[in-house]
Amino acid sequence: MDATPLYGGIEAGGTKFVCATGTGPDDVRAEIRFPTRGSTEALALAIEFFRTQPKLPSAIGIGAFGPVDSDPASSTYGYITNTPKEGWQNTDLVGPVRRAVGVPVVFDTDVNAAAVGEHHWGAARDVNTFLYLTVGTGIGGAAIIRGKRHHGLMHPEMGHILVPRAEGDDFEGKCPYHGQCLEGMASGPAIAARWKMAATDIPAGHIAWRIQAHYLAIAVINFIVTLSPERVILGGGVMQRSELLPMIRTIVLDRLRGYIRRDEITRHIDSYIVAPALGDRAGVLGAMALAAEAL
Amino acid sequence: MDATPLYGGIEAGGTKFVCATGTGPDDVRAEIRFPTRGSTEALALAIEFFRTQPKLPSAIGIGAFGPVDSDPASSTYGYITNTPKEGWQNTDLVGPVRRAVGVPVVFDTDVNAAAVGEHHWGAARDVNTFLYLTVGTGIGGAAIIRGKRHHGLMHPEMGHILVPRAEGDDFEGKCPYHGQCLEGMASGPAIAARWKMAATDIPAGHIAWRIQAHYLAIAVINFIVTLSPERVILGGGVMQRSELLPMIRTIVLDRLRGYIRRDEITRHIDSYIVAPALGDRAGVLGAMALAAEAL
Repeated sequence: MDATPLYGGIEAGGTKFVCATGTGPDDVRAEIRFPTRGSTEALALAIEFFRTQPKLPSAIGIGAFGPVDSDPASSTYGYITNTPKEGWQNTDLVGPVRRAVGVPVVFDTDVNAAAVGEHHWGAARDVNTFLYLTVGTGIGGAAIIRGKRHHGLMHPEMGHILVPRAEGDDFEGKCPYHGQCLEGMASGPAIAARWKMAATDIPAGHIAWRIQAHYLAIAVINFIVTLSPERVILGGGVMQRSELLPMIRTIVLDRLRGYIRRDEITRHIDSYIVAPALGDRAGVLGAMALAAEAL
Repeated sequence: MDATPLYGGIEAGGTKFVCATGTGPDDVRAEIRFPTRGSTEALALAIEFFRTQPKLPSAIGIGAFGPVDSDPASSTYGYITNTPKEGWQNTDLVGPVRRAVGVPVVFDTDVNAAAVGEHHWGAARDVNTFLYLTVGTGIGGAAIIRGKRHHGLMHPEMGHILVPRAEGDDFEGKCPYHGQCLEGMASGPAIAARWKMAATDIPAGHIAWRIQAHYLAIAVINFIVTLSPERVILGGGVMQRSELLPMIRTIVLDRLRGYIRRDEITRHIDSYIVAPALGDRAGVLGAMALAAEAL
């Protein structure tokens, strides 16, 4: 009767966990959310959720906050590794879930999971090579290349590219490693530190948004010329400020100065640099999409 | 007797053409070189070269100066497109060679061809995801991802990433499109314009090389965090200055500040950021490698 397999997803975020089962965004059959405290508690709640469903999922995907080990060939695949987060260092997420629920478990970073979600069900359904950038507490990027999540030697750490300063901006930067990398200049905490107020309290029209758009546009240009994506998706909490996306598009077009002659960019920038389509379920839907991809 | 197919290669450079046949770097059976004048002449000389060999190659690869159309699905695949170079605009290289020699012809940018050459026979034989950057009259980059030349929407234009200025450098930049992009700050002509002498005349120990190493190191960092390559190869005329490579390695390690925890980078930088291995035949060997890859 029901040919579509049931997917399970775990969004393992630094502040909240979301677990769900379903076949896609229009058919989420069950869902729980809880704040991220200790890892033992979180794993127990997630496992109980899946085991008490009327039907077990065919596979479970986990999209986790990092740093993680997402190399399937590694002995610590599925671990959150050297995180500063208390009680989460070197925590195996995949093993306990697989053993307790008894289905295949696929694992990746939260940003890679979100990108896979957009590829399956969201803003990147019609392309195979694209970039997903999330701008929030941190800045992370995922590249899907010819349909596959790109890893390479480690996994990309796109939030740490080094970008030219915005004119007149003398903020020292907030990244403990690189100071003035993209994340150090344009993450939510960077904005708050530069302007001494939460990003959400900064009014529309404030110069903060022009500076913010500068850093994100420069980063997007660098990703475009390096990765040659067919689409760029900009998500995350900071991007909820609706004035940002149009400003970024304008600066990208202006700074590229016609060097890239592709109609997809020069004539259709509004459908080239876009917002995610999956809204506030993007994380858990991304995790479910990891499961869908594995089946 | 001889099971290895014979490969043909055409390095179609902006200043010189090189044509060769052989089975690899240790077995180049014939070669001609001539200065790049008109396209009709160049094509006639190349075709004559292959047709007069004792044995026709099984396939011919062409690595061409750009901009090119390297999309096999395009009706102008194999064309040099909107180049400023007199007599070369909208020139079909693939069609005439295929018709006259009667073998399959594969086409890509010179930098992609060089990367494929290093993958087959050079400094990247043992990896499948790597970056090849050439620093000369222009700056171009090629990404090989899971063994394949990366194209995406257009093809990467890595020379045009935007990078922070070196301290104390007030050079206005030389890229007609972006001024201060990487190519605008660190190509051979940019060095010459900044210091008012040819790069080859600038002595060792001159601050020019520290500034040059800064721009290339920042670019390499950005490529590392974006593409997560297993190796970075730095070639091209400017990289012939032997002091550059060690300086770049030092700056890359210093600026990454331990954020990327991979022994391949932190402990073995000398085998992570390397020079090409194919020397002054890199161009035509790369073209031959395109043919090898296609067979």
